[in-house]
Amino acid sequence: MTDSSKRKIRMGMVGGGEGAFIGAVHRMAARLDGDIELVCGAFSGDADKSRQFGESLNLAPSRCYGSYEAMMREEAALPASEKMDFVAVVTPNHLHFPVAKLALEQGFHVMSDKPATFSYQEALQLKKTVDDTQRLYGLTHVYTAYPMIREAQAKVQNGELGAIRKMVVEYSQGWLASKEAEDGKQAKWRLDPSKAGVSCCMGDIGVHAANLVEFVSGLQITAICADLTSVVPGRRLDDDGTVLLQFDNGSKGVLLASQIATGEENNLHLRIYGDKASIEWRQMSPNTLILRDLHGHAQHIRSGVGALHPQTHSAMRLPAGHPEGYLEAFGNLYAAFAHAIHEYNSTDKAARQFVPGINEALRGMAFIEQVVEASNQHVKWCELKQGRTV
Amino acid sequence: MTDSSKRKIRMGMVGGGEGAFIGAVHRMAARLDGDIELVCGAFSGDADKSRQFGESLNLAPSRCYGSYEAMMREEAALPASEKMDFVAVVTPNHLHFPVAKLALEQGFHVMSDKPATFSYQEALQLKKTVDDTQRLYGLTHVYTAYPMIREAQAKVQNGELGAIRKMVVEYSQGWLASKEAEDGKQAKWRLDPSKAGVSCCMGDIGVHAANLVEFVSGLQITAICADLTSVVPGRRLDDDGTVLLQFDNGSKGVLLASQIATGEENNLHLRIYGDKASIEWRQMSPNTLILRDLHGHAQHIRSGVGALHPQTHSAMRLPAGHPEGYLEAFGNLYAAFAHAIHEYNSTDKAARQFVPGINEALRGMAFIEQVVEASNQHVKWCELKQGRTV
Amino acid sequence: MTDSSKRKIRMGMVGGGEGAFIGAVHRMAARLDGDIELVCGAFSGDADKSRQFGESLNLAPSRCYGSYEAMMREEAALPASEKMDFVAVVTPNHLHFPVAKLALEQGFHVMSDKPATFSYQEALQLKKTVDDTQRLYGLTHVYTAYPMIREAQAKVQNGELGAIRKMVVEYSQGWLASKEAEDGKQAKWRLDPSKAGVSCCMGDIGVHAANLVEFVSGLQITAICADLTSVVPGRRLDDDGTVLLQFDNGSKGVLLASQIATGEENNLHLRIYGDKASIEWRQMSPNTLILRDLHGHAQHIRSGVGALHPQTHSAMRLPAGHPEGYLEAFGNLYAAFAHAIHEYNSTDKAARQFVPGINEALRGMAFIEQVVEASNQHVKWCELKQGRTV
Amino acid sequence: MTDSSKRKIRMGMVGGGEGAFIGAVHRMAARLDGDIELVCGAFSGDADKSRQFGESLNLAPSRCYGSYEAMMREEAALPASEKMDFVAVVTPNHLHFPVAKLALEQGFHVMSDKPATFSYQEALQLKKTVDDTQRLYGLTHVYTAYPMIREAQAKVQNGELGAIRKMVVEYSQGWLASKEAEDGKQAKWRLDPSKAGVSCCMGDIGVHAANLVEFVSGLQITAICADLTSVVPGRRLDDDGTVLLQFDNGSKGVLLASQIATGEENNLHLRIYGDKASIEWRQMSPNTLILRDLHGHAQHIRSGVGALHPQTHSAMRLPAGHPEGYLEAFGNLYAAFAHAIHEYNSTDKAARQFVPGINEALRGMAFIEQVVEASNQHVKWCELKQGRTV
Repeated sequence: MTDSSKRKIRMGMVGGGEGAFIGAVHRMAARLDGDIELVCGAFSGDADKSRQFGESLNLAPSRCYGSYEAMMREEAALPASEKMDFVAVVTPNHLHFPVAKLALEQGFHVMSDKPATFSYQEALQLKKTVDDTQRLYGLTHVYTAYPMIREAQAKVQNGELGAIRKMVVEYSQGWLASKEAEDGKQAKWRLDPSKAGVSCCMGDIGVHAANLVEFVSGLQITAICADLTSVVPGRRLDDDGTVLLQFDNGSKGVLLASQIATGEENNLHLRIYGDKASIEWRQMSPNTLILRDLHGHAQHIRSGVGALHPQTHSAMRLPAGHPEGYLEAFGNLYAAFAHAIHEYNSTDKAARQFVPGINEALRGMAFIEQVVEASNQHVKWCELKQGRTV
Repeated sequence: MTDSSKRKIRMGMVGGGEGAFIGAVHRMAARLDGDIELVCGAFSGDADKSRQFGESLNLAPSRCYGSYEAMMREEAALPASEKMDFVAVVTPNHLHFPVAKLALEQGFHVMSDKPATFSYQEALQLKKTVDDTQRLYGLTHVYTAYPMIREAQAKVQNGELGAIRKMVVEYSQGWLASKEAEDGKQAKWRLDPSKAGVSCCMGDIGVHAANLVEFVSGLQITAICADLTSVVPGRRLDDDGTVLLQFDNGSKGVLLASQIATGEENNLHLRIYGDKASIEWRQMSPNTLILRDLHGHAQHIRSGVGALHPQTHSAMRLPAGHPEGYLEAFGNLYAAFAHAIHEYNSTDKAARQFVPGINEALRGMAFIEQVVEASNQHVKWCELKQGRTV
Repeated sequence: MTDSSKRKIRMGMVGGGEGAFIGAVHRMAARLDGDIELVCGAFSGDADKSRQFGESLNLAPSRCYGSYEAMMREEAALPASEKMDFVAVVTPNHLHFPVAKLALEQGFHVMSDKPATFSYQEALQLKKTVDDTQRLYGLTHVYTAYPMIREAQAKVQNGELGAIRKMVVEYSQGWLASKEAEDGKQAKWRLDPSKAGVSCCMGDIGVHAANLVEFVSGLQITAICADLTSVVPGRRLDDDGTVLLQFDNGSKGVLLASQIATGEENNLHLRIYGDKASIEWRQMSPNTLILRDLHGHAQHIRSGVGALHPQTHSAMRLPAGHPEGYLEAFGNLYAAFAHAIHEYNSTDKAARQFVPGINEALRGMAFIEQVVEASNQHVKWCELKQGRTV
Repeated sequence: MTDSSKRKIRMGMVGGGEGAFIGAVHRMAARLDGDIELVCGAFSGDADKSRQFGESLNLAPSRCYGSYEAMMREEAALPASEKMDFVAVVTPNHLHFPVAKLALEQGFHVMSDKPATFSYQEALQLKKTVDDTQRLYGLTHVYTAYPMIREAQAKVQNGELGAIRKMVVEYSQGWLASKEAEDGKQAKWRLDPSKAGVSCCMGDIGVHAANLVEFVSGLQITAICADLTSVVPGRRLDDDGTVLLQFDNGSKGVLLASQIATGEENNLHLRIYGDKASIEWRQMSPNTLILRDLHGHAQHIRSGVGALHPQTHSAMRLPAGHPEGYLEAFGNLYAAFAHAIHEYNSTDKAARQFVPGINEALRGMAFIEQVVEASNQHVKWCELKQGRTV
């Protein structure tokens, strides 16, 4: 994780004001490696609040905007040496698309929180905008950026697991288990179909699980059997669900997601079983990857320990036994995105490879919408209709 | 685990000769508490082998039989003070029913390995035989006999979890992951439809998982969505499967079972999420039960530590920190069965409560057969047609 | 763990009546493999109580004795085909020696709980008696009999760790942390110098730790720096202590033992660091042995999984993932002792190798007494004066 | 962890150039919360190297200095609105004192890596300089800044553990286990008495362990029994050691430290046993704190979960289940230090409370030097002669 020795990349932010969780995460992640500085933001639809919040971040008042439209317009008018390079989109879901679209059209690169858009239809339009503007688009599927996930992906690619036969990915949380929890700021918009989209649980965390299993395995989900539930009475969106999976190599899998799993924190857990070996990874103990072979040897591969693949090394900042966590993984995405911006005009597109982008955006929105549809079908299996490229 | 102070209960065994795994387990479990002595056996269809094996167990040669028919006939003719009290049936599945039926008809109690029979139809006949003969019938669903599973059941019954909303039970093994594994004695009959029945994975381990989730929750599975697979080419029976579950209180669940999960040992893992709290238990670390509440407190309840429910205490033999395992759990079933035989003529049927019996036999066979049927359906959900009592 | 196919070995027991913990453990361990049957006992100094207790174990009343002297005398007078083969000594410490001595002199083999005797002086006398009578003497240092400890020992012997440089062994319990705990039957005699000897904590558990570290490493403690404490006010014996160790290869180590470590169960934990690799084992998760090498690979070796050393295999009864625990380890000692009795008249002394014996008895008593003495010294290091053979 | 809404604090750095480990850690930690910006540095004694490295960090070439003397002189001459506020000292040990002294004398605050100085004598002089200049002095005992360590401290202070009776703190690493490891940049100066001081293992990691146990317990070490060893042949400083401890409340403890514990990563492990309850914490799983009470209840307290003490909350940035690690803990020190600088002229000294400072510097240097002396004594116990304030 060495610095590229060029100027700092300038970031603007839409959303992420007082009380937001993910905005602060994006800011810390962007700061971590010293490649990026926050220069402006539209933190709130209330211009005063936005300014006050921006000042608390040491921003110039003139660059704290009362709307994202104003921000795009005014930043675009600034000299090239001053204006922001990219926008971090950290609003509720329904604003992801309009903000990203306008930013791209004004010539800015975009780093968006997931899910990419409110609907699959919007994702298709976003794809068109990205293609038309040729700006960079990144999507913060943060779990793909953990060092041990990179190691897992490398092991699959190198054939260390053999042919993949079965995958189980689970993402369990308990924070929406009670009715009372619905009053929280984070809960409110996620349970509101006008802001979250067609799904709460699948849109918020199921899509992470689906993305992760495809990222590590290199396989694509081709068919789904879905069963979503609104467990807590009165909810209009799912808060729990299971999806049986078929992959394009003929193997099967299971995806479990829940926000009502009382007592679970942020339990993302991935297992991939090949015909030679298997891997197991847990987000809450992210610096360990367990590799088990057919003959029963269980190796605990640890971040910073022994011979790891190059893509793993480039995702670590510390020596063995010094735990890295969620912010460091998030920082890996920002570091890669900053690097991609630096290399934007070069012919080398390799720099973009570790930032999930518009294809993952499409896959994710296809997954969310079709899982909801499949859950309403009486037939068991439904085709998942979307390839990696549209 | 105090001794009943009466004479030792006399056990005969059918199956379990040289090279068998589960026969030795039954013998060790039966010995553990000193209430039972093995007095006879039909360990092999070859009379010489049966006798040699019996002698290695210090049995009298005259009571080592060359067939189970001979054993039933000759034991029945012995004086009451000598003849066996019950038969442990540890053969491959296809013999469970004929052996048990004959034993019951000859007046012997029966302790059978699972699954109870070869087919659901046989299970119905077995039920009739049990009803007709009024002998005791036990089924070794061993996992219900771990102390911490008893504790979990008590917590559910006492309402400590609140209303149950979601259950996830998994049973993963990797021992059948390779083609080569099929040559082993244990594998051969399990993969042979003429000996195992309609299922390998669900019949061997899935049924344990289904039994466990019903035992602890006190709920019954009412509908299933099943997807079974023969992952390793050439197999005629399933070696992997997932079943979505609906329970009679309206809650949902997931059951995952696999014998091709490379590197997994005997990973039985149960989670029950209520609206107040959840529990988590792992068979491979059986002396810990994790209880998590809505407010996030995670308590690690340990065998032998602190205040536990009486049914938990009666399932433990050692103080805290002295690990008990699979044989001790198995021994709990045998101890309870021996106690039930001692109390056979009493009016107190409470003694039988911790031995799974004919109802679990029927539930299990219904589950196995209907999961196989449901897996072949295009429709998502199928009713599971069998109540606790037929 | 196959049966030796000969007659069952006949066991008598001194101690272990109502309310005792370790007596029941010895009986269960002796029963487990079917090689041993309990035929007589002196369970209490009160003849009625002894008889009642023996009857609860299905013993003949004539063989339930009111004193160990009566038992030795009357058993010795029985025909060879009836009398007990060996005595299990499970009394408080102060009786270990007189019971064992009388038993040996009457021609019986002896399996004794630890510590072997009340004092080192007694241990020397016991050694003389064993030499004079040429009977078998076993000492239940049970922790040496866990499969993964056998594996660890084999790895050290095979040089897989390289030269040993440092060892840390800890044995922490919390059961004596409160004043109230002193009223329990187990606590009372252990804290009484007239019954326990010169030490409580070191005599009860520290000696296990010292034995284990020597067993696995094959090294001997040559010097000690000891600091024992009576933490809970009013106690006359130590309930906590730390001992710095020097070994005969020049390496060092640390032994920590405590009975007042609030909340600890039975936390015996061993680590051995060599110049090539290290091993780590925890009694409370006994089926895992962690091997870490210089290059950072951490392998979790599991009971029943993959290629293990023969001495490990012979200590296991179950396949991978079926947890074995304390009783199974204890059973390994009894199985080995029964085998040694069967082979008693053969020239092959190899059968005795896995039963700790009179040499461990001497080492242990030397360790206990000299640790207490060293703790009272102002000088840092004291020589531990006792070789493996006296 | 909200920003104080004032200008960013300006940081300079001495040391931490190419190939250094801890310099990069300090920079990332300082960046994390957006309160601090790096404005200058003397990264190398070679002016060209220093400038090149500084430019790679986006620093102005004019503020990349070839010596710390030049840096202090030239920064002091800058306008108040430009010059650095504090210096981060991340050189090898022998330079800590001269750099810190000069910085303080030039009016800069100082944040120093540990150990504070080369010798205790230097620490006394440093104390005098701090007193004379009245500048802020922080010492990066990073492990005190983990959220669960703050929680542990609060529990001790609130009496939740009762009276403390026993403490065990261990810090094991294996990175210096091989002779080859000595060639590394990190190893070279740590093993060189002219750069590291009188100790390698105790100076590098033992002092962290001693600091942590005093921080959490609120007790002070009053006597030590030390045994240090140079395990790998040819080393002039210790690479392993054990220290028995006495505390000012009469309780005892053990401190184990090693750099030759093959296979260990960065295993810092703390246990405190009180007469009511105990706590256990492991740096490599830092978001869990285990609390066990006398009655055996084991509670796993988790970062972000349930009711935690205010000082714990202020040390966390993320919700439950999103792992925070070493950099976040380090960032807590920097955030607190930046806050203390903002509040420097206020009368409220409370802001300084969570930054270890000059008193910890003195304690640490006293510990290191006296442990080395005690290790050379034949007498067991030596008084540790240094109070919290000199």
